[in-house]
Amino acid sequence: MKDASANADAKRLAGETAAELVKSGMVVGLGTGSTVAWTIKRLGVRVKEESLQFLGVPTSFQAENLAIASGITLTTLNVHPALDLAIDGADQVDSSLFVIKGGGAAHTREKVVACSAQRFVIVADESKYVEKLTGPVPVEVLPFAAKLVERRLKALGGVPVLRQGLRKDGPVITDNGNFVMDVDFGAIEEPEALAARLCGIPGIVEHGIFDNLDELYLTRAGGVEIIKRRV
Amino acid sequence: MKDASANADAKRLAGETAAELVKSGMVVGLGTGSTVAWTIKRLGVRVKEESLQFLGVPTSFQAENLAIASGITLTTLNVHPALDLAIDGADQVDSSLFVIKGGGAAHTREKVVACSAQRFVIVADESKYVEKLTGPVPVEVLPFAAKLVERRLKALGGVPVLRQGLRKDGPVITDNGNFVMDVDFGAIEEPEALAARLCGIPGIVEHGIFDNLDELYLTRAGGVEIIKRRV
Repeated sequence: MKDASANADAKRLAGETAAELVKSGMVVGLGTGSTVAWTIKRLGVRVKEESLQFLGVPTSFQAENLAIASGITLTTLNVHPALDLAIDGADQVDSSLFVIKGGGAAHTREKVVACSAQRFVIVADESKYVEKLTGPVPVEVLPFAAKLVERRLKALGGVPVLRQGLRKDGPVITDNGNFVMDVDFGAIEEPEALAARLCGIPGIVEHGIFDNLDELYLTRAGGVEIIKRRV
Repeated sequence: MKDASANADAKRLAGETAAELVKSGMVVGLGTGSTVAWTIKRLGVRVKEESLQFLGVPTSFQAENLAIASGITLTTLNVHPALDLAIDGADQVDSSLFVIKGGGAAHTREKVVACSAQRFVIVADESKYVEKLTGPVPVEVLPFAAKLVERRLKALGGVPVLRQGLRKDGPVITDNGNFVMDVDFGAIEEPEALAARLCGIPGIVEHGIFDNLDELYLTRAGGVEIIKRRV
Protein backbone atom coordinates (compact mmCIF):
# COMPACT_ATOMS: atom_id res chain seq x y z
CA MET A 1 0.00 0.00 0.00
CA LYS A 2 2.84 2.35 0.84
CA ASP A 3 4.44 1.72 -2.59
CA ALA A 4 1.17 2.29 -4.43
CA SER A 5 0.65 5.53 -2.58
CA ALA A 6 4.25 6.64 -3.23
CA ASN A 7 3.71 5.85 -6.91
CA ALA A 8 0.50 7.89 -6.98
CA ASP A 9 2.36 10.80 -5.34
CA ALA A 10 5.14 10.53 -7.94
CA LYS A 11 2.64 10.66 -10.81
CA ARG A 12 0.96 13.67 -9.25
CA LEU A 13 4.25 15.52 -8.78
CA ALA A 14 5.38 15.02 -12.42
CA GLY A 15 1.92 15.81 -13.76
CA GLU A 16 1.41 18.97 -11.76
CA THR A 17 4.94 20.27 -12.36
CA ALA A 18 4.50 20.07 -16.15
CA ALA A 19 1.29 22.10 -15.85
CA GLU A 20 3.51 25.12 -15.15
CA LEU A 21 4.71 24.97 -18.79
CA VAL A 22 1.36 26.31 -20.00
CA LYS A 23 1.19 30.08 -20.52
CA SER A 24 -1.76 32.25 -21.47
CA GLY A 25 -2.41 32.30 -25.20
CA MET A 26 -1.12 28.78 -25.83
CA VAL A 27 -2.87 25.91 -27.59
CA VAL A 28 -2.00 22.71 -25.70
CA GLY A 29 -2.50 19.01 -26.40
CA LEU A 30 -3.95 17.19 -23.39
CA GLY A 31 -2.90 13.57 -23.04
CA THR A 32 -4.61 10.48 -21.68
CA GLY A 33 -3.88 8.45 -18.55
CA SER A 34 -3.46 8.69 -14.80
CA THR A 35 -0.32 10.89 -14.69
CA VAL A 36 -1.36 13.55 -17.21
CA ALA A 37 -4.77 13.61 -15.49
CA TRP A 38 -2.94 15.50 -12.71
CA THR A 39 -1.71 17.99 -15.32
CA ILE A 40 -5.23 18.58 -16.57
CA LYS A 41 -6.64 19.00 -13.05
CA ARG A 42 -3.85 21.40 -12.12
CA LEU A 43 -4.49 23.40 -15.31
CA GLY A 44 -8.13 23.65 -14.28
CA VAL A 45 -7.03 25.13 -10.93
CA ARG A 46 -4.73 27.60 -12.72
CA VAL A 47 -7.61 28.69 -14.99
CA LYS A 48 -9.72 29.48 -11.92
CA GLU A 49 -7.07 30.89 -9.57
CA GLU A 50 -4.61 32.57 -11.94
CA SER A 51 -6.97 33.49 -14.80
CA LEU A 52 -4.82 31.34 -17.09
CA GLN A 53 -6.27 31.50 -20.60
CA PHE A 54 -5.38 28.74 -23.01
CA LEU A 55 -7.07 26.27 -25.34
CA GLY A 56 -6.81 22.50 -24.93
CA VAL A 57 -6.88 19.78 -27.61
CA PRO A 58 -7.90 16.47 -26.02
CA THR A 59 -6.36 13.17 -27.18
CA SER A 60 -9.31 10.99 -26.10
CA PHE A 61 -12.83 11.01 -24.69
CA GLN A 62 -11.21 10.59 -21.25
CA ALA A 63 -9.07 13.72 -21.66
CA GLU A 64 -11.99 15.63 -23.15
CA ASN A 65 -14.33 14.85 -20.27
CA LEU A 66 -11.74 15.57 -17.60
CA ALA A 67 -10.81 18.87 -19.27
CA ILE A 68 -14.46 19.94 -19.48
CA ALA A 69 -15.00 19.00 -15.82
CA SER A 70 -11.87 21.02 -14.95
CA GLY A 71 -13.18 24.15 -16.68
CA ILE A 72 -10.67 24.14 -19.57
CA THR A 73 -11.77 25.64 -22.89
CA LEU A 74 -11.32 23.13 -25.71
CA THR A 75 -10.63 23.38 -29.41
CA THR A 76 -9.83 20.89 -32.18
CA LEU A 77 -6.92 20.23 -34.53
CA ASN A 78 -9.18 21.37 -37.33
CA VAL A 79 -9.60 24.84 -35.78
CA HIS A 80 -6.06 25.05 -34.33
CA PRO A 81 -3.81 22.73 -36.34
CA ALA A 82 -0.53 24.01 -34.83
CA LEU A 83 -0.11 23.46 -31.09
CA ASP A 84 2.45 25.19 -28.90
CA LEU A 85 2.82 22.22 -26.58
CA ALA A 86 1.52 18.70 -25.99
CA ILE A 87 1.73 17.00 -22.59
CA ASP A 88 1.07 13.30 -22.26
CA GLY A 89 1.89 10.18 -20.25
CA ALA A 90 3.73 7.04 -21.39
CA ASP A 91 3.94 3.29 -20.89
CA GLN A 92 7.74 3.31 -21.19
CA VAL A 93 10.44 5.85 -22.00
CA ASP A 94 14.03 4.83 -22.69
CA SER A 95 17.25 6.76 -22.12
CA SER A 96 17.28 7.98 -25.76
CA LEU A 97 13.73 9.29 -25.27
CA PHE A 98 12.03 6.71 -27.45
CA VAL A 99 8.57 6.11 -26.03
CA ILE A 100 5.96 3.36 -25.99
CA LYS A 101 2.36 4.49 -25.61
CA GLY A 102 -1.04 2.89 -26.11
CA GLY A 103 -1.82 1.20 -22.79
CA GLY A 104 -4.94 3.38 -22.78
CA ALA A 105 -5.69 2.54 -26.44
CA ALA A 106 -5.44 6.25 -27.32
CA HIS A 107 -2.01 6.30 -28.98
CA THR A 108 -3.22 7.12 -32.51
CA ARG A 109 -4.85 10.37 -31.53
CA GLU A 110 -2.03 11.02 -29.03
CA LYS A 111 0.55 10.69 -31.79
CA VAL A 112 -1.34 12.99 -34.14
CA VAL A 113 -1.63 15.59 -31.36
CA ALA A 114 2.03 15.18 -30.33
CA CYS A 115 3.16 15.57 -33.95
CA SER A 116 1.03 18.70 -34.30
CA ALA A 117 2.86 20.37 -31.40
CA GLN A 118 6.04 22.42 -31.42
CA ARG A 119 7.11 20.87 -28.11
CA PHE A 120 6.16 17.40 -26.87
CA VAL A 121 6.53 16.70 -23.15
CA ILE A 122 5.91 13.45 -21.29
CA VAL A 123 5.17 13.18 -17.59
CA ALA A 124 6.04 9.95 -15.79
CA ASP A 125 7.10 8.33 -12.56
CA GLU A 126 10.35 6.39 -12.37
CA SER A 127 8.65 3.00 -12.99
CA LYS A 128 8.18 4.01 -16.66
CA TYR A 129 11.83 4.92 -17.27
CA VAL A 130 13.95 2.11 -18.71
CA GLU A 131 17.38 1.64 -20.24
CA LYS A 132 15.87 -0.24 -23.20
CA LEU A 133 12.24 -0.51 -24.32
CA THR A 134 10.73 -3.93 -23.65
CA GLY A 135 7.13 -3.36 -24.71
CA PRO A 136 4.65 -4.72 -25.37
CA VAL A 137 4.01 -2.34 -28.29
CA PRO A 138 0.32 -1.55 -28.76
CA VAL A 139 -0.83 -1.30 -32.38
CA GLU A 140 -4.24 -0.06 -33.51
CA VAL A 141 -5.63 -2.35 -36.21
CA LEU A 142 -8.54 -2.17 -38.66
CA PRO A 143 -10.85 -5.03 -37.56
CA PHE A 144 -11.12 -6.63 -41.02
CA ALA A 145 -7.30 -6.69 -41.30
CA ALA A 146 -6.66 -8.43 -37.96
CA LYS A 147 -5.51 -11.76 -39.39
CA LEU A 148 -3.11 -10.22 -41.93
CA VAL A 149 -1.64 -7.90 -39.31
CA GLU A 150 -1.22 -10.80 -36.89
CA ARG A 151 0.67 -12.80 -39.53
CA ARG A 152 2.92 -9.87 -40.44
CA LEU A 153 3.68 -9.10 -36.78
CA LYS A 154 4.71 -12.71 -36.20
CA ALA A 155 6.94 -12.52 -39.30
CA LEU A 156 8.72 -9.56 -37.62
CA GLY A 157 9.37 -11.73 -34.54
CA GLY A 158 6.52 -10.31 -32.47
CA VAL A 159 3.96 -12.12 -30.34
CA PRO A 160 0.66 -10.25 -30.80
CA VAL A 161 -2.24 -10.54 -28.39
CA LEU A 162 -5.62 -9.05 -29.29
CA ARG A 163 -6.52 -6.85 -26.32
CA GLN A 164 -9.73 -8.04 -24.68
CA GLY A 165 -12.24 -5.70 -23.08
CA LEU A 166 -13.16 -5.50 -19.43
CA ARG A 167 -16.74 -4.42 -18.77
CA LYS A 168 -17.18 -5.19 -22.48
CA ASP A 169 -17.40 -8.62 -24.08
CA GLY A 170 -14.88 -9.34 -26.82
CA PRO A 171 -12.00 -7.13 -27.94
CA VAL A 172 -11.36 -3.56 -26.82
CA ILE A 173 -12.62 -1.04 -29.40
CA THR A 174 -10.66 2.22 -29.65
CA ASP A 175 -12.15 5.71 -29.78
CA ASN A 176 -11.67 5.35 -33.58
CA GLY A 177 -13.61 2.07 -33.79
CA ASN A 178 -10.62 -0.28 -34.21
CA PHE A 179 -8.88 -3.19 -32.39
CA VAL A 180 -5.67 -3.03 -30.36
CA MET A 181 -2.99 -5.72 -30.40
CA ASP A 182 -0.28 -5.74 -27.73
CA VAL A 183 2.86 -7.06 -29.38
CA ASP A 184 5.76 -8.52 -27.42
CA PHE A 185 9.06 -8.06 -29.29
CA GLY A 186 11.25 -8.73 -26.22
CA ALA A 187 13.94 -6.08 -25.68
CA ILE A 188 13.73 -3.59 -28.55
CA GLU A 189 17.26 -2.93 -29.80
CA GLU A 190 16.35 -0.54 -32.63
CA PRO A 191 13.05 1.24 -31.96
CA GLU A 192 13.33 3.40 -35.09
CA ALA A 193 13.79 0.41 -37.41
CA LEU A 194 10.93 -1.47 -35.73
CA ALA A 195 8.71 1.61 -36.05
CA ALA A 196 9.39 1.82 -39.79
CA ARG A 197 8.56 -1.87 -40.24
CA LEU A 198 5.30 -1.51 -38.30
CA CYS A 199 4.35 1.50 -40.45
CA GLY A 200 4.62 -0.69 -43.54
CA ILE A 201 2.06 -3.29 -42.45
CA PRO A 202 -1.29 -2.72 -44.22
CA GLY A 203 -4.14 -2.61 -41.72
CA ILE A 204 -2.15 -1.02 -38.88
CA VAL A 205 -3.64 2.42 -38.29
CA GLU A 206 -0.84 3.46 -35.92
CA HIS A 207 1.75 1.81 -33.68
CA GLY A 208 2.69 2.89 -30.16
CA ILE A 209 6.37 3.80 -30.72
CA PHE A 210 6.97 7.56 -30.53
CA ASP A 211 10.25 9.11 -31.69
CA ASN A 212 9.51 12.80 -31.28
CA LEU A 213 9.70 13.39 -27.52
CA ASP A 214 11.40 16.67 -26.62
CA GLU A 215 11.38 16.55 -22.81
CA LEU A 216 10.62 14.05 -20.09
CA TYR A 217 9.34 15.27 -16.72
CA LEU A 218 10.36 12.36 -14.50
CA THR A 219 9.75 12.06 -10.78
CA ARG A 220 12.67 10.48 -8.98
CA ALA A 221 14.34 10.84 -5.60
CA GLY A 222 11.41 12.97 -4.44
CA GLY A 223 11.85 15.62 -7.14
CA VAL A 224 11.12 16.14 -10.83
CA GLU A 225 14.04 15.67 -13.18
CA ILE A 226 13.77 17.20 -16.65
CA ILE A 227 15.50 15.08 -19.29
CA LYS A 228 15.86 16.78 -22.68
CA ARG A 229 16.49 15.24 -26.04
CA ARG A 230 20.11 15.43 -27.07
CA VAL A 231 20.19 17.25 -30.37
CA MET B 1 -18.42 7.96 -78.40
CA LYS B 2 -16.50 5.37 -80.37
CA ASP B 3 -13.47 5.74 -78.05
CA ALA B 4 -15.60 5.39 -74.94
CA SER B 5 -17.16 2.25 -76.29
CA ALA B 6 -13.75 0.83 -77.32
CA ASN B 7 -12.52 1.58 -73.81
CA ALA B 8 -15.50 -0.21 -72.26
CA ASP B 9 -14.81 -3.21 -74.50
CA ALA B 10 -11.15 -3.22 -73.45
CA LYS B 11 -12.10 -3.21 -69.76
CA ARG B 12 -14.51 -6.04 -70.33
CA LEU B 13 -11.95 -8.14 -72.20
CA ALA B 14 -9.27 -7.82 -69.49
CA GLY B 15 -11.79 -8.36 -66.70
CA GLU B 16 -13.41 -11.42 -68.21
CA THR B 17 -10.10 -13.01 -69.24
CA ALA B 18 -8.76 -12.86 -65.68
CA ALA B 19 -11.91 -14.61 -64.45
CA GLU B 20 -10.49 -17.79 -66.02
CA LEU B 21 -7.78 -17.82 -63.31
CA VAL B 22 -10.32 -18.89 -60.71
CA LYS B 23 -10.53 -22.66 -60.09
CA SER B 24 -12.90 -24.61 -57.87
CA GLY B 25 -11.79 -24.67 -54.23
CA MET B 26 -10.07 -21.29 -54.34
CA VAL B 27 -10.61 -18.31 -52.02
CA VAL B 28 -10.42 -15.16 -54.16
CA GLY B 29 -10.25 -11.44 -53.36
CA LEU B 30 -12.76 -9.45 -55.45
CA GLY B 31 -11.71 -5.92 -56.29
CA THR B 32 -13.58 -2.69 -56.78
CA GLY B 33 -14.19 -0.66 -59.94
CA SER B 34 -15.54 -0.85 -63.46
CA THR B 35 -12.98 -3.29 -64.95
CA VAL B 36 -12.97 -5.91 -62.21
CA ALA B 37 -16.78 -5.67 -62.18
CA TRP B 38 -16.56 -7.63 -65.45
CA THR B 39 -14.48 -10.27 -63.64
CA ILE B 40 -17.11 -10.60 -60.92
CA LYS B 41 -19.97 -10.82 -63.41
CA ARG B 42 -18.11 -13.43 -65.46
CA LEU B 43 -17.39 -15.44 -62.29
CA GLY B 44 -21.12 -15.40 -61.54
CA VAL B 45 -21.77 -16.88 -65.00
CA ARG B 46 -19.12 -19.55 -64.40
CA VAL B 47 -20.72 -20.45 -61.05
CA LYS B 48 -24.05 -20.99 -62.82
CA GLU B 49 -22.88 -22.57 -66.08
CA GLU B 50 -19.75 -24.48 -65.04
CA SER B 51 -20.62 -25.30 -61.42
CA LEU B 52 -17.51 -23.36 -60.39
CA GLN B 53 -17.24 -23.48 -56.61
CA PHE B 54 -15.12 -20.85 -54.91
CA LEU B 55 -15.36 -18.29 -52.11
CA GLY B 56 -15.02 -14.55 -52.68
CA VAL B 57 -13.68 -11.89 -50.30
CA PRO B 58 -15.02 -8.48 -51.32
CA THR B 59 -12.87 -5.33 -51.04
CA SER B 60 -15.78 -2.90 -50.72
CA PHE B 61 -19.56 -2.60 -50.38
CA GLN B 62 -19.63 -2.25 -54.18
CA ALA B 63 -17.81 -5.57 -54.73
CA GLU B 64 -19.90 -7.25 -52.04
CA ASN B 65 -23.21 -6.22 -53.56
CA LEU B 66 -22.17 -7.10 -57.11
CA ALA B 67 -20.86 -10.51 -55.98
CA ILE B 68 -24.09 -11.27 -54.12
CA ALA B 69 -26.15 -10.22 -57.15
CA SER B 70 -23.93 -12.47 -59.31
CA GLY B 71 -24.55 -15.52 -57.11
CA ILE B 72 -21.01 -15.76 -55.68
CA THR B 73 -20.61 -17.23 -52.17
CA LEU B 74 -18.73 -14.83 -49.92
CA THR B 75 -16.48 -15.21 -46.93
CA THR B 76 -14.31 -12.85 -44.86
CA LEU B 77 -10.60 -12.47 -44.12
CA ASN B 78 -11.41 -13.47 -40.56
CA VAL B 79 -12.76 -16.85 -41.68
CA HIS B 80 -10.32 -17.33 -44.58
CA PRO B 81 -7.21 -15.26 -43.86
CA ALA B 82 -5.08 -16.76 -46.67
CA LEU B 83 -6.38 -16.16 -50.19
CA ASP B 84 -5.22 -18.03 -53.28
CA LEU B 85 -5.71 -15.09 -55.57
CA ALA B 86 -6.84 -11.45 -55.57
CA ILE B 87 -8.07 -9.70 -58.71
CA ASP B 88 -8.52 -5.94 -58.78
CA GLY B 89 -8.45 -2.88 -61.01
CA ALA B 90 -6.04 0.08 -60.88
CA ASP B 91 -5.78 3.81 -61.50
CA GLN B 92 -2.28 3.49 -62.95
CA VAL B 93 0.30 0.72 -63.41
CA ASP B 94 3.88 1.45 -64.45
CA SER B 95 6.32 -0.71 -66.36
CA SER B 96 7.90 -2.02 -63.11
CA LEU B 97 4.40 -3.03 -61.92
CA PHE B 98 4.09 -0.35 -59.27
CA VAL B 99 0.44 0.55 -58.97
CA ILE B 100 -1.68 3.51 -57.88
CA LYS B 101 -5.14 2.67 -56.56
CA GLY B 102 -7.81 4.50 -54.61
CA GLY B 103 -9.88 6.31 -57.22
CA GLY B 104 -12.82 4.39 -55.79
CA ALA B 105 -11.75 5.23 -52.20
CA ALA B 106 -11.43 1.50 -51.45
CA HIS B 107 -7.64 1.14 -51.53
CA THR B 108 -7.17 0.35 -47.83
CA ARG B 109 -9.33 -2.75 -47.91
CA GLU B 110 -8.01 -3.57 -51.39
CA LYS B 111 -4.43 -3.50 -50.12
CA VAL B 112 -5.24 -5.68 -47.11
CA VAL B 113 -6.96 -8.20 -49.41
CA ALA B 114 -4.14 -8.08 -52.00
CA CYS B 115 -1.52 -8.62 -49.28
CA SER B 116 -3.52 -11.59 -47.94
CA ALA B 117 -3.35 -13.33 -51.33
CA GLN B 118 -0.67 -15.60 -52.71
CA ARG B 119 -1.09 -14.09 -56.17
CA PHE B 120 -2.23 -10.54 -56.92
CA VAL B 121 -3.52 -9.80 -60.41
CA ILE B 122 -4.66 -6.46 -61.84
CA VAL B 123 -6.96 -6.07 -64.82
CA ALA B 124 -6.75 -2.88 -66.87
CA ASP B 125 -7.15 -1.30 -70.27
CA GLU B 126 -4.20 0.40 -71.92
CA SER B 127 -5.15 3.89 -70.68
CA LYS B 128 -3.99 2.84 -67.18
CA TYR B 129 -0.54 1.64 -68.28
CA VAL B 130 2.21 4.26 -68.01
CA GLU B 131 5.98 4.42 -68.20
CA LYS B 132 6.14 6.35 -64.92
CA LEU B 133 3.44 6.90 -62.28
CA THR B 134 2.07 10.43 -62.25
CA GLY B 135 -0.70 10.11 -59.68
CA PRO B 136 -2.48 11.66 -57.98
CA VAL B 137 -1.92 9.28 -55.05
CA PRO B 138 -5.05 8.77 -52.94
CA VAL B 139 -4.45 8.54 -49.19
CA GLU B 140 -7.08 7.56 -46.62
CA VAL B 141 -6.90 9.90 -43.62
CA LEU B 142 -8.38 9.91 -40.11
CA PRO B 143 -10.69 12.95 -40.10
CA PHE B 144 -9.25 14.50 -36.92
CA ALA B 145 -5.73 14.26 -38.41
CA ALA B 146 -6.54 16.00 -41.70
CA LYS B 147 -4.60 19.21 -41.01
CA LEU B 148 -1.45 17.43 -39.81
CA VAL B 149 -1.51 15.06 -42.77
CA GLU B 150 -2.01 17.96 -45.17
CA ARG B 151 1.04 19.76 -43.71
CA ARG B 152 3.20 16.64 -43.87
CA LEU B 153 2.17 15.88 -47.46
CA LYS B 154 3.11 19.40 -48.50
CA ALA B 155 6.47 18.98 -46.75
CA LEU B 156 7.04 15.93 -49.00
CA GLY B 157 6.39 18.09 -52.06
CA GLY B 158 2.81 16.93 -52.60
CA VAL B 159 -0.27 18.97 -53.38
CA PRO B 160 -3.13 17.36 -51.44
CA VAL B 161 -6.78 17.93 -52.28
CA LEU B 162 -9.48 16.70 -49.91
CA ARG B 163 -11.80 14.65 -52.11
CA GLN B 164 -15.31 16.11 -52.17
CA GLY B 165 -18.43 14.02 -52.40
CA LEU B 166 -20.93 13.97 -55.23
CA ARG B 167 -24.49 13.18 -54.16
CA LYS B 168 -23.15 13.91 -50.67
CA ASP B 169 -22.33 17.31 -49.20
CA GLY B 170 -18.80 17.76 -47.91
CA PRO B 171 -15.91 15.32 -48.19
CA VAL B 172 -16.14 11.74 -49.42
CA ILE B 173 -16.29 9.29 -46.49
CA THR B 174 -14.69 5.87 -47.10
CA ASP B 175 -16.24 2.52 -46.22
CA ASN B 176 -14.06 2.76 -43.07
CA GLY B 177 -15.43 6.18 -42.07
CA ASN B 178 -12.41 8.27 -43.10
CA PHE B 179 -11.45 11.07 -45.55
CA VAL B 180 -9.53 10.68 -48.82
CA MET B 181 -6.91 13.15 -50.05
CA ASP B 182 -5.71 13.01 -53.66
CA VAL B 183 -2.07 14.05 -53.65
CA ASP B 184 -0.27 15.31 -56.73
CA PHE B 185 3.47 14.57 -56.56
CA GLY B 186 4.07 15.12 -60.29
CA ALA B 187 6.01 12.26 -61.94
CA ILE B 188 6.92 9.75 -59.24
CA GLU B 189 10.57 8.79 -59.70
CA GLU B 190 10.86 6.42 -56.73
CA PRO B 191 7.50 4.92 -55.80
CA GLU B 192 8.98 2.68 -53.08
CA ALA B 193 10.68 5.58 -51.29
CA LEU B 194 7.54 7.71 -51.52
CA ALA B 195 5.45 4.82 -50.17
CA ALA B 196 7.74 4.48 -47.14
CA ARG B 197 7.50 8.21 -46.43
CA LEU B 198 3.70 8.16 -46.69
CA CYS B 199 3.57 5.19 -44.28
CA GLY B 200 5.40 7.29 -41.69
CA ILE B 201 2.83 10.11 -41.56
CA PRO B 202 0.63 9.76 -38.46
CA GLY B 203 -3.04 9.93 -39.38
CA ILE B 204 -2.70 8.25 -42.79
CA VAL B 205 -4.57 4.95 -42.59
CA GLU B 206 -3.25 3.74 -45.93
CA HIS B 207 -1.82 5.21 -49.13
CA GLY B 208 -2.64 4.12 -52.65
CA ILE B 209 0.79 2.94 -53.83
CA PHE B 210 0.93 -0.87 -54.20
CA ASP B 211 4.26 -2.68 -54.61
CA ASN B 212 3.10 -6.31 -54.59
CA LEU B 213 1.52 -6.82 -58.01
CA ASP B 214 2.38 -10.21 -59.53
CA GLU B 215 0.63 -10.02 -62.90
CA LEU B 216 -1.06 -7.42 -65.05
CA TYR B 217 -3.83 -8.46 -67.45
CA LEU B 218 -3.70 -5.60 -69.93
CA THR B 219 -5.90 -5.16 -72.97
CA ARG B 220 -4.00 -3.79 -75.93
CA ALA B 221 -4.06 -4.22 -79.69
CA GLY B 222 -7.34 -6.09 -79.34
CA GLY B 223 -5.96 -8.82 -77.10
CA VAL B 224 -4.98 -9.35 -73.47
CA GLU B 225 -1.28 -9.17 -72.72
CA ILE B 226 -0.08 -10.74 -69.48
CA ILE B 227 2.83 -8.83 -67.95
CA LYS B 228 4.53 -10.61 -65.06
CA ARG B 229 6.74 -9.16 -62.36
CA ARG B 230 10.42 -9.70 -63.08
CA VAL B 231 11.84 -11.58 -60.09
